[in-house]
Amino acid sequence: MADLIQRQREISALLQQQNYEAAVQALQPLNYADQARLIQQFPIEDQIELLSGLAHQGLVFEFFPFELQRQLISRYPLRLQIELFDDMHSDDATDLYKSLTDAEQDRIYQQLDQDTQEHLKALSAYAEESAGAIMSSDYVSMPADFTMQQAIEALRHEAHDRETLYLIYVTNDQSQLEGVISLRQILQADRDARIQQVMTKDVVTGWIDEDQESIARKLAEYDFMALPIVDHALRLMGIVTYDDAMDVVQAETTEDFLKASAVSTEPGMSIKKAPILKLYQKRVFWLVILVFGSLLSGLGISYYEDIIAAHIVLVFFLPLLVGSGGNAGSQSATLMVRALATGDVNIRDWFYLLGRETLVALCLGGTMAIAVSILGYYRGDAIVALVLALSMMGIVLLGCLIGMSLPFVLNKLKLDPASASAPLVTSICDATGVVVYLMIASQLLNL
Amino acid sequence: MADLIQRQREISALLQQQNYEAAVQALQPLNYADQARLIQQFPIEDQIELLSGLAHQGLVFEFFPFELQRQLISRYPLRLQIELFDDMHSDDATDLYKSLTDAEQDRIYQQLDQDTQEHLKALSAYAEESAGAIMSSDYVSMPADFTMQQAIEALRHEAHDRETLYLIYVTNDQSQLEGVISLRQILQADRDARIQQVMTKDVVTGWIDEDQESIARKLAEYDFMALPIVDHALRLMGIVTYDDAMDVVQAETTEDFLKASAVSTEPGMSIKKAPILKLYQKRVFWLVILVFGSLLSGLGISYYEDIIAAHIVLVFFLPLLVGSGGNAGSQSATLMVRALATGDVNIRDWFYLLGRETLVALCLGGTMAIAVSILGYYRGDAIVALVLALSMMGIVLLGCLIGMSLPFVLNKLKLDPASASAPLVTSICDATGVVVYLMIASQLLNL
Repeated sequence: MADLIQRQREISALLQQQNYEAAVQALQPLNYADQARLIQQFPIEDQIELLSGLAHQGLVFEFFPFELQRQLISRYPLRLQIELFDDMHSDDATDLYKSLTDAEQDRIYQQLDQDTQEHLKALSAYAEESAGAIMSSDYVSMPADFTMQQAIEALRHEAHDRETLYLIYVTNDQSQLEGVISLRQILQADRDARIQQVMTKDVVTGWIDEDQESIARKLAEYDFMALPIVDHALRLMGIVTYDDAMDVVQAETTEDFLKASAVSTEPGMSIKKAPILKLYQKRVFWLVILVFGSLLSGLGISYYEDIIAAHIVLVFFLPLLVGSGGNAGSQSATLMVRALATGDVNIRDWFYLLGRETLVALCLGGTMAIAVSILGYYRGDAIVALVLALSMMGIVLLGCLIGMSLPFVLNKLKLDPASASAPLVTSICDATGVVVYLMIASQLLNL
Repeated sequence: MADLIQRQREISALLQQQNYEAAVQALQPLNYADQARLIQQFPIEDQIELLSGLAHQGLVFEFFPFELQRQLISRYPLRLQIELFDDMHSDDATDLYKSLTDAEQDRIYQQLDQDTQEHLKALSAYAEESAGAIMSSDYVSMPADFTMQQAIEALRHEAHDRETLYLIYVTNDQSQLEGVISLRQILQADRDARIQQVMTKDVVTGWIDEDQESIARKLAEYDFMALPIVDHALRLMGIVTYDDAMDVVQAETTEDFLKASAVSTEPGMSIKKAPILKLYQKRVFWLVILVFGSLLSGLGISYYEDIIAAHIVLVFFLPLLVGSGGNAGSQSATLMVRALATGDVNIRDWFYLLGRETLVALCLGGTMAIAVSILGYYRGDAIVALVLALSMMGIVLLGCLIGMSLPFVLNKLKLDPASASAPLVTSICDATGVVVYLMIASQLLNL
């Protein structure tokens, strides 16, 4: 890290002397990610000089945060834009290309490599968040009858923008995937053996229209470096690499995380850098929606005003009872949302899980009921203690069942189960809690 | 997937005929993860036969869920235990070894390869959740003066349990890391060039005592396949690979996620399979703690009983006002916890973020104040509307500031900021909300 700061000073000095060639030389030994980090710091004119000077400007530019790529690309000269698109990996190039206006797309497209044009056209067509939208077409493939010697020779001349040389895919003349062989296998097999004798034929693949989260999960489960993506005729269409899978997991998790506390999300939004108004806008929607939940609780309370007035001790316990239901419900909802996201449970498991949840909720409710009835006896009498114990039991049970079911219901309604946020569950449980508590109280206390 | 089920039937039939050799043959073409998945399904006697027959039984056994590895290993015959430990990658072997009882460790240790013994002794010593505890010592290293031709020759004979052949580390005679070269660079450089001419000298490394989360973040940021881990004398100690980093991210995220709704966690706990009592135990702690928060709200309400009795309309709005503060506060806390976890913000940014949060909170509070004052005017009068608007403003502002600060305070107290769960924030905000609302009401309505 210290080195990086020193390097930055050095390059900065060279740029001030307009010695661009030496500045590029000083960048060269760094890895792409660090090159990107340094270049970002300089004014746009210097960025243009540095990127233009580098051999693999596209591979460096990929490491700029996506928001920054979008802002900068149209401010660069057209020549550099073309160089960047031709040099970038096809998946990153496609994401950036799709963010341009139609006019910008048209201006660039005609001047790109034929290869880049084809990749962009093919990859732009896939649905957001599908395997097709995150895959890259820069994989290496070889015929099955190559010998190991031939394979190594071929790999020596593969282009620098291949995502990986370490997994080589074998296809037949209908482009159908027949096998995969790793460079490790190639190196360690006999030089005259043929690929078909060594390759793995039982290849784990992803479908072109499969959800990106499911692709990322498969990669993590098998510890593969890349997953080949096929269409429904089993033709090889592209690959998704482990680093893209990590990005998907990171993005999806942040989304789920924020949804869990009722914040709408946007990929890559930084709470440090996003404009105040955007943060406001991402939060106000759910806050206003949740007001309606609270109004229901209010209505419940007004309906039972008389019983409250007659037994004012009930108000003291209201937040405790109602809050416990909301808390237990939030726990259930989060456990469920996370288990659905990691693939630990499946929508079909609902009935089985409902049974288990009922048992857990009875234990939790029982414990809480004992605690609260002691308090109730101390501050009120035996009847109050009974009211509290019964209410606590019912409220916690209901809370857990609501919390556990909401993600499933949302899923059935084709909504994201992660929208079953703690605040949403809490406000639903609050309203039911008020009614349960005051109903039980009015029955028992008016005996 | 369909193939896998068919394969399972086939192997199952062979096992019933006690034709173990053919059963192993049928497993052989599958990848390690699928082999592991199938073997798990069979009774332990068959597992022993199948694992003993496979060439790389350790690499397959690594794909068993860790809980299962722990349960099974001591039930396998000693000979198989030894084979497994010798064959596994050193990081996985160490995790499993540490889970054995002292007696079991002693019995196995003496019979292991010398190589395995050294790895186990060295790796067992590192602190949990540090780079040392997750790294593997199965990396490939070479002298800097090897030619590319020599490097390729050496790689042909590297053992099968090396984590990767694709990144080769170069050390000097004090074991200090001098550079790294990828197999891609080796293949594509001139055959007579020497490693030192081609290798990257500016190597990104992790420290042996660095937190595992920070290691995983570095790997994701640079898109590296592996990160070399060095001690404070810059000696190369091991590597952490991308698949281990993915596991770390997954585990840490689930932990944060469950903490966010006040569930205590345990690595690898499945809500589908964990015993009911364990689920109960992980949830009851926080539910009981949160009762105290609710009791504070209850106390607040009893203190202002008179003003409530005089203006019963206030009760109707109580859940709405108090709930909105809790909701806004949960949003702030989650945004902050997640931003700290992904490295978007830093503890030092607190003061800056507090300023931004105040602005966002004023906008949110303002919007909610307008909404609630209209309701208040409709159900009460102008004074009630004013009370509600002021209270809402104050409650939302306080809620946001509490939600944003709690993770920082926990961090300062050396606690995990992720413990600033939505239910905890909600129950603190509820108590302050009750006081703010009823204090403002008692001031203005008694004018």
